[in-house]
Amino acid sequence: MSSDNSPPRGTRDLLPEAVAQRDRLQAAITGVYQRFGYQRIETPALEALERLTAGQGGENEKLIFRVLRRGLPAHLEAGAELSSLVDLGLRYDLTVPLVRFYANNISQLRAPFRAFQLGPVWRAERPQRGRYRQFHQCDIDIIGEASVLAELELIEATTEALAAAGLDGVVVHLSDRRILSAVAALAGLAEESWPSLFVGLDKADKIGWEGVRDELVRVRHLPARGVDAAVTALSSLAGASAAQLADALPALDDRVLADLETTTAALHTLCADRRWSWFLDPTLVRGMGYYTGQIFEVTHPGLGSSVAGGGRYDDLIGRSLGRCVPACGFSIGFERVATILGSPAGNETVGLVYEPDVAIAEVLEAASALRLDGHRVATIPRSGKLGSQLDRLAGWGITAWVHLRAGEPAGRPLAIGPRRPS
Amino acid sequence: MSSDNSPPRGTRDLLPEAVAQRDRLQAAITGVYQRFGYQRIETPALEALERLTAGQGGENEKLIFRVLRRGLPAHLEAGAELSSLVDLGLRYDLTVPLVRFYANNISQLRAPFRAFQLGPVWRAERPQRGRYRQFHQCDIDIIGEASVLAELELIEATTEALAAAGLDGVVVHLSDRRILSAVAALAGLAEESWPSLFVGLDKADKIGWEGVRDELVRVRHLPARGVDAAVTALSSLAGASAAQLADALPALDDRVLADLETTTAALHTLCADRRWSWFLDPTLVRGMGYYTGQIFEVTHPGLGSSVAGGGRYDDLIGRSLGRCVPACGFSIGFERVATILGSPAGNETVGLVYEPDVAIAEVLEAASALRLDGHRVATIPRSGKLGSQLDRLAGWGITAWVHLRAGEPAGRPLAIGPRRPS
Repeated sequence: MSSDNSPPRGTRDLLPEAVAQRDRLQAAITGVYQRFGYQRIETPALEALERLTAGQGGENEKLIFRVLRRGLPAHLEAGAELSSLVDLGLRYDLTVPLVRFYANNISQLRAPFRAFQLGPVWRAERPQRGRYRQFHQCDIDIIGEASVLAELELIEATTEALAAAGLDGVVVHLSDRRILSAVAALAGLAEESWPSLFVGLDKADKIGWEGVRDELVRVRHLPARGVDAAVTALSSLAGASAAQLADALPALDDRVLADLETTTAALHTLCADRRWSWFLDPTLVRGMGYYTGQIFEVTHPGLGSSVAGGGRYDDLIGRSLGRCVPACGFSIGFERVATILGSPAGNETVGLVYEPDVAIAEVLEAASALRLDGHRVATIPRSGKLGSQLDRLAGWGITAWVHLRAGEPAGRPLAIGPRRPS
Repeated sequence: MSSDNSPPRGTRDLLPEAVAQRDRLQAAITGVYQRFGYQRIETPALEALERLTAGQGGENEKLIFRVLRRGLPAHLEAGAELSSLVDLGLRYDLTVPLVRFYANNISQLRAPFRAFQLGPVWRAERPQRGRYRQFHQCDIDIIGEASVLAELELIEATTEALAAAGLDGVVVHLSDRRILSAVAALAGLAEESWPSLFVGLDKADKIGWEGVRDELVRVRHLPARGVDAAVTALSSLAGASAAQLADALPALDDRVLADLETTTAALHTLCADRRWSWFLDPTLVRGMGYYTGQIFEVTHPGLGSSVAGGGRYDDLIGRSLGRCVPACGFSIGFERVATILGSPAGNETVGLVYEPDVAIAEVLEAASALRLDGHRVATIPRSGKLGSQLDRLAGWGITAWVHLRAGEPAGRPLAIGPRRPS
């Protein structure tokens, strides 16, 4: 037991500095989302496996940490199936739980319901640098708003939240899942293969177009000709205006173009005096299969991958609730943003360094007096040379200190020293 | 899938009002603990099963949610043992992870290290009213402080945190695990049975002395005579002073009495002008087997069970680190306190109720203007009779509202109405 004290493979301990930084990020985001009327909710980490594997999770369904049923015998019967031993799993996203939460609590929720979720999810991915098996997601969703007011509000709130967190100059990419569907239809691909196509196309950033083609044709067995046609059509749309989209994709519904016009007109106004920009990006693909309308992603110049993404998913709630309710969501890449942002100095802690012969009651009293003056105080016994100890304190981020000696008159104002003993 | 949208058995969804209340409690506690120099840390929800079942968890080790190894075949071989299929478990407390965290990260931590943890733990207990299988614990621990300065600071910080949360007039019960050991020795019980004895005695509140005796003798097979002697000796100590303890328990180490004298003297001073009180309670038993020194519990007049508890555990860190480091911790019953406290009114949200013919851009602009004035704003489409809709809003906690009609001059100051349409 004493040899290895690392956390489980692919997980990590968060040290005080990291937690403080994440808390600041959380506070910045929360403040903005609250001003937009979002209400934070929490759901359990565990969900029924049946629900987690119902098809909403795409690739993530293969990465579930599965939990053993309680009360099983220690020795298993011959031929037992693994699936019969498990009933729960750790959630891999916050969308599956949100859909369940909404259906379970709808009678007590506002309409439209604005949900804010910030919490851990788990995926048993192959551990790699910067990716963890437990990580935070940060989602806002509007449930019950059919118009693009939802999309626009989500974009406004999320860009504002990112700015509040210190991430200026972001770029919003806007498209519509129905553009992709029209591309897939134009390429002659059967509708049941579209979800696979979208998952594959979404990986272009990571594995390139050749890799995408390879995966779609060899692994997912989509027809090569259709895949090529789709890739060609999609890449030709880069930079296209709404009018050009209409020309290139005759099958595109007028409502898609009308929605895009409303959104783009409002975005022009919205970001006129703001610190972010946007553009229509018909090549945008979001991996999840459940999107039904506009989709968006936020990038930052100088960062490789996106910092936020989302879209409309009008059919998902209906699967749990039994009747259709429109919905739209936006997710901030919390972990990604947390690592990008610097660590502004937090509130300083004063080190109350006391000599061993000072009575405990006097140490407590001195600490209490400093706290009453508004300081954060950590009491620390004197040891070794004072200079070295103060250096050590500075290494811990404690650069303000008080040296408490025995017999000093009670009530004497305590002088807080900077860095070096006077 | 559509029929049952409840969370898994024994877990719960937290609605916005509950989350807001918990957030306020968390903020109150966090503010106080930070002033005492505690640093919040986070550890993963999953820990190695080997670590979770190493004997620190007592009864809780039977309640672990166990996680299946990844990559197992769907069909199991005959005679497979359940234990070979699992490698991880969900943590059942924050102490086991803290001890691992400290050993893993010691080189980067302050000395003494003051840890603050607030997060979920999981126990597969039989579901019952008010108890959940996922719940929050809220712990502070000082690692590396051998003197009762640690105990005193933990008591001061925790009573202050409870007061900040709105829980005044709490009572601190103080004792020392070594008093219990002396009682057990006096009763002639073998030392290896003491941990069982303490777990049993701790249940007196719940199952009464007869129940305790029954469990210790029949279930745990401790000798009846010894158990009776221990129970008699312990109950006779109720209200005893330190001097009376010394008389009743000749085997009690002088250091125990010296520590108690230091603590009680300082507590007299500490709570002179505070809103809490304390008393020496030699009948206090804490269930966990790992305590080695002073133990404490906080009760509130009018509440059945305790709201916080803790104690010194000097041997636990050594088991992971390989060398002894003194440690002392205090845990607030977060869920318990959250349910006790009322819900003070939060920041009010303004409902921006817009007619269907108002352009989306105008709705966004009006919402933005209200937010700039410092309001939380939720846009809500008009539907049905205005009066009924405003009643519905009030039911959601939205009692301030703005009614937005088409064609109203832009930039007109928006009048926020109270409850009823004007």
